[in-house]
Amino acid sequence: MTVQNPLREGQTIRRPAEPCTLVVLGATGDLTGRKLLPALYNLSRDGHMPSRFAIVGFARRPKSDDEFRNDMFDALKEFSRAKPEGREQADAFLSNVFYHQGQLDSPDDFRALGAHLDRLEKEKGLPGNRLFYLAVSPEYFEPIVSAMRDANLAKPRNEGEWVRIIIEKPFGEDLKTAKELNRKITAVFNESQIYRIDHYLGKETVQNLLAFRFANSIFEPLWSSRYIDHVQITMAEEVGMPGRRGQYFDKTGITRDVVQNHVLQLLCLTAMEPPASLDADSLRDEKVRVLRAIRTMTVDEVKANVVRGQYGAGSLRGEAVPAYRSENQIEPDSVTETYVAIRFNVRNWRWAGVPFLLRAGKRLPKRATEIAIVFKRPAHEIFDVDHEFKRPNTLALRIQPDEGISMTFAAKQPGLATTLQPVQMDFRYGSSFGQASPEAYERLLLDCIIGDGSLFTRADEVEEAWRICTAIQQAWDQLPKPTDMPNYEAGSWGPKEADKLTSDLITGWRRL
Amino acid sequence: MTVQNPLREGQTIRRPAEPCTLVVLGATGDLTGRKLLPALYNLSRDGHMPSRFAIVGFARRPKSDDEFRNDMFDALKEFSRAKPEGREQADAFLSNVFYHQGQLDSPDDFRALGAHLDRLEKEKGLPGNRLFYLAVSPEYFEPIVSAMRDANLAKPRNEGEWVRIIIEKPFGEDLKTAKELNRKITAVFNESQIYRIDHYLGKETVQNLLAFRFANSIFEPLWSSRYIDHVQITMAEEVGMPGRRGQYFDKTGITRDVVQNHVLQLLCLTAMEPPASLDADSLRDEKVRVLRAIRTMTVDEVKANVVRGQYGAGSLRGEAVPAYRSENQIEPDSVTETYVAIRFNVRNWRWAGVPFLLRAGKRLPKRATEIAIVFKRPAHEIFDVDHEFKRPNTLALRIQPDEGISMTFAAKQPGLATTLQPVQMDFRYGSSFGQASPEAYERLLLDCIIGDGSLFTRADEVEEAWRICTAIQQAWDQLPKPTDMPNYEAGSWGPKEADKLTSDLITGWRRL
Repeated sequence: MTVQNPLREGQTIRRPAEPCTLVVLGATGDLTGRKLLPALYNLSRDGHMPSRFAIVGFARRPKSDDEFRNDMFDALKEFSRAKPEGREQADAFLSNVFYHQGQLDSPDDFRALGAHLDRLEKEKGLPGNRLFYLAVSPEYFEPIVSAMRDANLAKPRNEGEWVRIIIEKPFGEDLKTAKELNRKITAVFNESQIYRIDHYLGKETVQNLLAFRFANSIFEPLWSSRYIDHVQITMAEEVGMPGRRGQYFDKTGITRDVVQNHVLQLLCLTAMEPPASLDADSLRDEKVRVLRAIRTMTVDEVKANVVRGQYGAGSLRGEAVPAYRSENQIEPDSVTETYVAIRFNVRNWRWAGVPFLLRAGKRLPKRATEIAIVFKRPAHEIFDVDHEFKRPNTLALRIQPDEGISMTFAAKQPGLATTLQPVQMDFRYGSSFGQASPEAYERLLLDCIIGDGSLFTRADEVEEAWRICTAIQQAWDQLPKPTDMPNYEAGSWGPKEADKLTSDLITGWRRL
Repeated sequence: MTVQNPLREGQTIRRPAEPCTLVVLGATGDLTGRKLLPALYNLSRDGHMPSRFAIVGFARRPKSDDEFRNDMFDALKEFSRAKPEGREQADAFLSNVFYHQGQLDSPDDFRALGAHLDRLEKEKGLPGNRLFYLAVSPEYFEPIVSAMRDANLAKPRNEGEWVRIIIEKPFGEDLKTAKELNRKITAVFNESQIYRIDHYLGKETVQNLLAFRFANSIFEPLWSSRYIDHVQITMAEEVGMPGRRGQYFDKTGITRDVVQNHVLQLLCLTAMEPPASLDADSLRDEKVRVLRAIRTMTVDEVKANVVRGQYGAGSLRGEAVPAYRSENQIEPDSVTETYVAIRFNVRNWRWAGVPFLLRAGKRLPKRATEIAIVFKRPAHEIFDVDHEFKRPNTLALRIQPDEGISMTFAAKQPGLATTLQPVQMDFRYGSSFGQASPEAYERLLLDCIIGDGSLFTRADEVEEAWRICTAIQQAWDQLPKPTDMPNYEAGSWGPKEADKLTSDLITGWRRL
């Protein structure tokens, strides 16, 4: 079966989903059962997988093919978007699933894996197309890459075949480590073989942003400093730091955990110039241009334009919740930020003078991710503006939950007085389309199988994003350790101090 | 009590609603009981009337004040937006209502009316501010104006007092008669004393159009030939020609009946430049500029750009309905148009090359008035446009029913393919505001009492509108009598021939 490149449907270039083998490295980890196998199962069920394929789990733990299949069957029943109807139905898919035991840093074990793949390919009549999914923690990225090189698994052996690797976040922990990691990986793989995943980019509404901006003629003319006062990008979480990721998070902070990747990606999609086409490099070139137009902040600029916070005890939806410092695995004197607000400018022609405000936080009153475009006032006011109506025209692109778009504008209140009132036009993604959205991982895995890197992050993109965030981190490292933490109550909209970033703007921070 | 000029609320210039006397000429006609007295009652009830006022009905039929009050009480019970709770409550209002018997063309009777008004004003301590409402058929306009002049009723007698007249449509039946009427009326009254009513302009959404365009910053940048492909203005009626107005309509046709006034007003509000302020002359200057930018059509241009139709028998909502020619009071060989579609250009900088399509029709499938702004395609298409999605971005301003605004744009369909689909953002006036809208006549009467002519039609405006419509009428008079009538079925969207007007456009006529 030939699957078109979905991002290029209708265009002249189409790529087939060629028969291939998917190797999941770290196959006994959470991600495999929760996300990867369910995504592959759904792709297969919906007819998107290649005509022939094999999936090989690779991990330390000894396990037979059947044991691994049983584990995966349980995972499908629990986590798959479409549940398997029974074991027989799942087996059509699971019969393509195999297991190979080995150490993640052992070239010998990778050689054995290679031999296993050769055998499998021969048995199943598969070409040498191989996709390696690094579903492992970051310290294994480098050893795996070396072992693959040593085991001769990094390059295709025959003309016309391909080898690709998917790397999970976090990609580095600052600019230096990201560069080093890129250097080490690109010593073994070409950039075109590398798929750095940010599952946020696989979400429907993120992709819809591209359609919204560039498939319509009415938004792009408004999309500049001429009409836009400022942009607010919010990624609010209700959750605090429950268990497992605590130790990692406490070393990382929210800036590196979500701003460096998700939030800056949203910024890029919002601010980018229209690309010449939807092909991977056209898109990524434009995104990188946005990041390049953001200056590396000095320590003084960080003091003026970045506000960090950490939640204290508080309440959320009526329930008392503990302070960050009391959470499991968190240092009792931690100054790790659980909230950050950043203001900067994208220094190019289109965005000259338009502040971009980003904020991300844990234990905020609501889980919500949105991009809000706040427009300037009308050029000439003929209606009275002294009264209640103060809200400027705003276009809000909600990423989650309740994905959609709403536009706030002024309308006349019915009645004899000409009183204006803000009203809203709404489009709700969910209510407008009957279909269930595929999971982000479905799209991203299929894109990688097809060889479409549009929704993956390129080396220069990752490094530019790290450049911006690392400057902030370094300024914090140089500044005295904050003494005011915790500085916001769990369940509030973050530290008061963040208001200083909006004090000269047409509106303050949005309350979502 | 001082009522602010509602259109200027919050601005420096405010005008009070000064104590005055309203004289309804033709007080026993339908309009008085159905619209005028209910509107005045509601204004009074809602506290918008001046502190002191009198209403005097004037008509041929002999009637006492009490008889007239009883008639009006019955009318309020039947037609008022807010029903009177009982006779006692209504009497607070009705005690200000009087009757004067007289002939509409008799200077003597008007002298007697003058004496009556003098007495009333003295008794009630009212100044000589007088508003004369000509609620009569057009043949009386001129005799009334002459009689008022002869009876010395046309000018205020004391410094600081005012006399105003409200004239109902139709104002003339072509350019010549409209000019003549203007000449005769302006020989007696100053333009600033004359309020030509088009009750369409009193409707909420029509006023909301001004707020929508000029109180927001995001629509005006898109409002030109640069982004707009064409504009469609539709005024569709389900009704045919039931009874009473048949004879009048058969002599008039839909072009003169609704296009010359309502539809061209909607066009003006859509196409006008932003006025410097909301004052009456700023607004009307801009509206006249739009009409002046429309060329008088030649006979050939009318043949190419105007399509007329007349409905034959058909069915509407499942019920058989007769042909126009079989309706009561209609000539059996009538060629009067019950449908018209007109395409023209507003020849100015903003609208160069943008076709404006107007259509009005009876016995169409649906009662609906709307203005649709149809936008061009995106400057550069990066998404596939070969498939199903063909609908351009469209902003629809619904005037009636279900007043509101909706915007059609393209969104990505959920799923792995990047398929675009048109979706809609909606704002419904009714569901967004709890309040009941005042009737058009309430607003217009109050505006006239306050002396705000913004929503009334100025002499030059009426004449420009007649210039455009008279050219069409004259071309028809010169062309051979149409032999293809009836040329559309009742319950259909009009004659097929109208499609020729949209054949070169991005979309055809909208199906509402």
